[in-house]
Formats: sequence, structure tokens, C-alpha cells
Amino acid sequence: MNRGEMLYEGKAKRVYLTDDPDRVWVEYKDDATAFNARKKGKITGKGQLNNQISSFFFRYLREKGIENHFLETLSDTEQIVKKVAILPVEVVVRNRAAGSLARRLGLEEGISFSRPVVEFYYKDDRLDDPLINEDHIRLLNAATDDQLAMMRQTALKVNRLLSKLMEERGITLVDFKLEFGLNREGHLLLADEISPDTCRFWEAATGQKLDKDRFRRDLGNVENAYREIWNRLGGETRV
Amino acid sequence: MNRGEMLYEGKAKRVYLTDDPDRVWVEYKDDATAFNARKKGKITGKGQLNNQISSFFFRYLREKGIENHFLETLSDTEQIVKKVAILPVEVVVRNRAAGSLARRLGLEEGISFSRPVVEFYYKDDRLDDPLINEDHIRLLNAATDDQLAMMRQTALKVNRLLSKLMEERGITLVDFKLEFGLNREGHLLLADEISPDTCRFWEAATGQKLDKDRFRRDLGNVENAYREIWNRLGGETRV
Repeated sequence: MNRGEMLYEGKAKRVYLTDDPDRVWVEYKDDATAFNARKKGKITGKGQLNNQISSFFFRYLREKGIENHFLETLSDTEQIVKKVAILPVEVVVRNRAAGSLARRLGLEEGISFSRPVVEFYYKDDRLDDPLINEDHIRLLNAATDDQLAMMRQTALKVNRLLSKLMEERGITLVDFKLEFGLNREGHLLLADEISPDTCRFWEAATGQKLDKDRFRRDLGNVENAYREIWNRLGGETRV
Repeated sequence: MNRGEMLYEGKAKRVYLTDDPDRVWVEYKDDATAFNARKKGKITGKGQLNNQISSFFFRYLREKGIENHFLETLSDTEQIVKKVAILPVEVVVRNRAAGSLARRLGLEEGISFSRPVVEFYYKDDRLDDPLINEDHIRLLNAATDDQLAMMRQTALKVNRLLSKLMEERGITLVDFKLEFGLNREGHLLLADEISPDTCRFWEAATGQKLDKDRFRRDLGNVENAYREIWNRLGGETRV
């Protein structure tokens, strides 16, 4: 497969066409942004780590029956995925209070929920990715009712699978964000990435944050946190 | 019935106990606030007008089968209502883009929706009454699933009834906010007020705003706008 022209450059990835119209080539970058890109930086090794971590999670979810865009890891920082048109809805699942939910509802960070909370956000940088409800999604034609139901159901299944997987490795999955896309046939697939950029991971024993909050809040040791997640998943420490 | 001690003073109303434990005495004030009380003012005659307008709407909704807290208009500025414990959820129904929804979704003010949009807000001044979804409501135990379903259904029915009523009077019901409460038996009732403080009313022919947006945006003629709504409902102009 050959890498063609760049289709899109995002905050943390570049996406290129290939000679197969149904496949794109994704390159993970070390660039890090937070607060809708008002904070910018670099996390050395993040591109490699997130490429490996996200490949691992998507392979694992495929094995567990969750259809997704992942095809193969090409190199330390590159992977091939199915080409999809990303829906403008981010799906967030939360098991504990943190980040914007803790602020929105005035809850103390870390409070554990008896049932996971699902949220939808409208992917629009100009609007700062606002929280939206299902009526807003219908109004915006951002997803059909069937797609919405399937995204919610898939997100809750991903939550059960990854919470268990990470718990066995001593990590609490606090919350995470998923994106979905439609392939050429209009079929809905889990897409984008699953990594410490898109999940909150806390070491269960100590509560130590092992995710992008270390960058957002200038907590230091950002690279080591990402590497620790990869190590817990059985990755080679040399990455 | 005798007016007892003051139970609560809100931004636009005072609520007093009576000698009947199931009834409270409500006094409407001329005080106006906006933007979570960051803007304050007085609208001369608003207390009288909103008392009359809200009494009118609640009577009308009762006739149309929507159970609510209203009992009787006592005087120009006072009414007797059933005592309820207000649930900490504001229910908003929108027929056109305006206010926070237009800002949230980047929509032009006035765009008409093919289906009404229902939103829930968490009544908490410290948090600036944030938009919440049904999972948040469950998390906060702010309402049961049954109460939530009934609030949504009632709000949509109120929307159909009041949209038609106002349309016949040359007024477009753009959006409105409802509150609900539980009586001593735990029965859910529509409560609070329905007035130009809680609805957006636009004159259909001209688009002129006849509601609290005149106060929020310093458009002038605030008193006349409230009075015009009361006139269109058949009220006496001398109020």
C-alpha cells in the first residue's frame, strides 16, 4: 500500500489517502493540545505510544465483537484504518466525576457513579464542542436515531470491556471519549483513537493520573504516564 | 385564608405560608433579574402583569387537562397555589433558535425547528443552571425516570396548547421554561409561573420581542411588551 496525499491534519494525527479508496493511512504525532487548542505542547514519544495503545485497544475490541475502523499497525507511529466519514458527535462515558462533568454539576473529582453516565458533545471547535442532548442531535441532523442508539449501546459495551481490562492491570478507567464514522456503505463503525489522550486512566492503588490531565494541569511526567499505560498493556518498554 | 410567614423570596416572587399546610400565598414583584442575577432592575407593573398572565395560562392549561399548582388569583399581584417541593430541573421547550441554544449550536436567531427541542437544566445558581441530560438527572437523583418522562410529555403538550393559543392572538411562542413540583402525596404538578419572564413571545407580524429579552438586551419598552401580552390574552389595559 502506498501513502497518498494528506487528507486532513488534526491536533494529534495526520491522515493520508492510500491507493485503496476504502483505506487511509494515519500518522500519530507528538503534538498535544488541550482546552480546544488554547494550550499547545509536545509530548516526546506520544505519537509512538498512542499508535501502539490505540492499535491494542481496537484489536481487543474487534476480538470482543465491536466492529471498528482498525486494520493494521504499520510502524511505530503509523496505522492503516478503514476510511470513514466521522459523525460530528463525540460520545463520552464516565464512571467517576472528573473534568467538565465535575465542574458542570459541582461534584468532587473522583466520586464513583453507580451507573455510567453517557454524554454527547457536538464536534465543532468554533463552538468549543458543546454538550448536546438527543433533541439537539436530531435538530442538527448530526446522527439518526438509530445511529444514536447504536453509539450509546456500543459506548457502554466498550466501557464494560475496557474497564475490566484496565482493572486487571491496576488501572481505573475514569472516563473516555469515542468517535464514530460511516463507511462508504453507510455502515456505522467505531473510529478515531483510544489512548491516554482520549481516556482518563488513574492508577487504582494510588489514584495517580496516567493520562492527558498531566499535560492539561502541568503535573509533569507526562511521557512516563503514557508509557506506563503501554507497559500495563504488555507493551515493550523500549517504545 | 391568612398570609403566614415568608417561606422563600425568589428573584421575581415571594412565597408565604398560609393556615392551610397544602397552600401557599405567592406575591409577584416588579424586580427583574437576568444572567443569573448579574443584571438587576425593576419593571414597573411586572408583578401585576405576570400575576395576571400566569394565572390566565395556568387556568387555561387546567381546562385543557394539565394538572397544575394554580388555585386562585387573590389580588393584582397575589395568587394562591398548591404547596409543592420544586424539583431542581428546569424544562425548556424551543420552537425556534434563540438565546442560549442559538449560541450553543451556532444557529441564527429565529430559525424555525421542524420538531420542538426539549432541554433540561439543573436549577443551581452556583453552577449557573447548566444544561444537563437524562443521565445527569439520574446521577443527581434530581427526578425519577417516570417524573422525567412525564415532565417531557407535559412540556410538549403545554407547547402545543400555548403555541396555538398565542398564534391565534398574533404571537409566536419561541420557547419557554417550566418547573414542576411534588405535592405532599408525591404527585408531580406543573408549577412556578408562565409569563414573559419565562417565555419568549414574538409578535408574529413584525418579529418584535414581547418578553424579558427586552430587559436582558436593553431594548426599551419593557413594560409595554408585558402589557401587550396581557392585552392579547384579553386582559384589561388598565392593569
